[in-house]
Amino acid sequence: MFQNMLENVQKKCPLIHNITNYVTVNDCANIVIACGASPIMADDKDEVADITTICAGLNINIGTLNSRTIASMLIAGKRANELNHPVVLDPVGAGASKLRTETAMQLLQEVKFSVIRGNISEIKTLASGSGTTKGVDADVADKVTEDNLDDVIAFAKGFAKKTGAVIAITGAIDIVADSKKAYCIRNGHPMMSSITGTGCQLSAMTAAFVTANPDHSLEAAAASVAAMGYAGEVAHSRLTEMDGNSTYRNYIIDAIYNMTPEMLEKGAKYEVR
Amino acid sequence: MFQNMLENVQKKCPLIHNITNYVTVNDCANIVIACGASPIMADDKDEVADITTICAGLNINIGTLNSRTIASMLIAGKRANELNHPVVLDPVGAGASKLRTETAMQLLQEVKFSVIRGNISEIKTLASGSGTTKGVDADVADKVTEDNLDDVIAFAKGFAKKTGAVIAITGAIDIVADSKKAYCIRNGHPMMSSITGTGCQLSAMTAAFVTANPDHSLEAAAASVAAMGYAGEVAHSRLTEMDGNSTYRNYIIDAIYNMTPEMLEKGAKYEVR
Amino acid sequence: MFQNMLENVQKKCPLIHNITNYVTVNDCANIVIACGASPIMADDKDEVADITTICAGLNINIGTLNSRTIASMLIAGKRANELNHPVVLDPVGAGASKLRTETAMQLLQEVKFSVIRGNISEIKTLASGSGTTKGVDADVADKVTEDNLDDVIAFAKGFAKKTGAVIAITGAIDIVADSKKAYCIRNGHPMMSSITGTGCQLSAMTAAFVTANPDHSLEAAAASVAAMGYAGEVAHSRLTEMDGNSTYRNYIIDAIYNMTPEMLEKGAKYEVR
Repeated sequence: MFQNMLENVQKKCPLIHNITNYVTVNDCANIVIACGASPIMADDKDEVADITTICAGLNINIGTLNSRTIASMLIAGKRANELNHPVVLDPVGAGASKLRTETAMQLLQEVKFSVIRGNISEIKTLASGSGTTKGVDADVADKVTEDNLDDVIAFAKGFAKKTGAVIAITGAIDIVADSKKAYCIRNGHPMMSSITGTGCQLSAMTAAFVTANPDHSLEAAAASVAAMGYAGEVAHSRLTEMDGNSTYRNYIIDAIYNMTPEMLEKGAKYEVR
Repeated sequence: MFQNMLENVQKKCPLIHNITNYVTVNDCANIVIACGASPIMADDKDEVADITTICAGLNINIGTLNSRTIASMLIAGKRANELNHPVVLDPVGAGASKLRTETAMQLLQEVKFSVIRGNISEIKTLASGSGTTKGVDADVADKVTEDNLDDVIAFAKGFAKKTGAVIAITGAIDIVADSKKAYCIRNGHPMMSSITGTGCQLSAMTAAFVTANPDHSLEAAAASVAAMGYAGEVAHSRLTEMDGNSTYRNYIIDAIYNMTPEMLEKGAKYEVR
Repeated sequence: MFQNMLENVQKKCPLIHNITNYVTVNDCANIVIACGASPIMADDKDEVADITTICAGLNINIGTLNSRTIASMLIAGKRANELNHPVVLDPVGAGASKLRTETAMQLLQEVKFSVIRGNISEIKTLASGSGTTKGVDADVADKVTEDNLDDVIAFAKGFAKKTGAVIAITGAIDIVADSKKAYCIRNGHPMMSSITGTGCQLSAMTAAFVTANPDHSLEAAAASVAAMGYAGEVAHSRLTEMDGNSTYRNYIIDAIYNMTPEMLEKGAKYEVR
């Protein structure tokens, strides 16, 4: 199943509009290309409607947001909705500042999202309207473990029902859920948290996956999450003693570039709950 | 001839002012250093005139433009013209949005450029005042092939005559032309299109080349285009099975860093038409 | 001594708020993670006070500043002062434009800094209120050599006394001084100047070091400077014939990632004057 999801990305090469932060934007562009799609970054209110119109999908990431780009996110999101384009939300740092929390809540109210991807603290913030996200990383108190996994899955399904979006909560165990079905994905490597922007990259790639698979948003998002985790494993296996997080960053994008649909199908580790 | 162009960059180490997009800016800075020049990035209207004044050349790239930076591009471009500094224009995504097309047209009207570098769709958009650029990549319908090469060369020469700028149209075959003479450059590797920003990097490097060779803009731009393509070949030859577009990106910049004038002279593959 | 400084970073994993330029921001984030701390980038005036509040330290870098971010720097700096959080200033390009010089001077007046890190031209500009910085690199006339080392140390101590900040002047020889004591650090490799942003990265990392060692700002800053230089040596020793500045950039961050406190203690080359 995941195999088909990646195949469609590579076959259709969807053009993805990204409004994203300036920290990890280059890696986002390169990973979107690596998976077989094509990225364009544009964030001015006077062009985002045009750009969204020529694209097939939209990725909104609120990292390093500002008043100028918030307006652009809303315009682009609404335009994408009009055109029935999939829209992904990455609520980076929701809970870390009032501005980020409020912006994420406003986006949720005014834009219909196909997928919302964040760490557990960010998603909890969205669900409750407030939060205590520790910067851009998940709060330790929120950590998803085998012990609370069922609770988190129930939470994800509930939030998916409320928003109509596929909810992707990523961390040591990844959960990708719609209102009825959840994928628990156990790919990845702990060292991935030593790289800035693996989450941002995943969101951008997920926009490509759901855009290329419009009738299978849940499976497409799950396939993207599994692909990222599997790439983290493949990349880690290449590291030598002197390599660190910067080389690892490059190798993860390389692994996505070299990942065939068959490799993803074989490498994905998940269960459905 | 190309040898001398690179020699002059390395000897003069020109300081290049870049107003460029936040997606590929880091790679632009590193490749400008790699070729022997020195970059400075500054985009606020209150400092661009100062920065352009202390620099020897200017590179304007309209990717991720916004109303604030458009004003800065105009100020810096006019200041550079007053000082007789070479100015390069990279019309990223011209044709993809009204804002980009209009900004590129306004820049063409108000600033005199030494070199305009883009893909065929972007340059056609500039020549006609409107276009259908597919995001930031060239439209397939516009592709330069052996069959339409003479037509594209004639078009490039005509647009060079109209603008007074050297026109660099890059793709599978690169064309660098003034009103009378065109270089067809056949360096490069198809995988270069799998990296975000090879075009942006080339424009930044070209600003360094034309700045260091003020009386030879055509040859300088052609040498820069050949250097980029040749670096793409050298870098590709280093790739192992597990390497992908991210490692390739690093290796291309590395190849520019290690390129001697003699290597460029030997590696450049071109004909004059 | 330097050993303890790095140990504390790794043990406390301080969250560092960065308001920094879009050229080198990704490398800054990755090196902050590499040394054991955690970065968050945020530059909107409506959220910087919130973000500074949840962080333990602040890094202000004026590269690619604009009127919007200058306001944010002042708000964040004052908030950090209220909370007694360490604040680092990197006056990138002070002296290269009126805007940068004046912004740096205003920050010095309105914010109390724990550390000011720049090249000799930038620091001289700050001390005199005007300057002739050559872009973002030090002016050759300003170069620190064995011949003028005592003078530069006296200058650094004097400026430290005036500002109350630790002054870190980095170049071929690095000087890190408070009003009474100076570390002369002789780590590093000339090729580090072929990478954009090693200075920016160092400033971001220094914020992590001084935040984790609040009672030892001088030693913490010196340890961070030594760590960066030593990483430059380690990374250089890995380079093969075809590697250039882009691979070197990755390897330096990798070297920080793999640096243990013991390695830093052993690798640091310095004298106290």
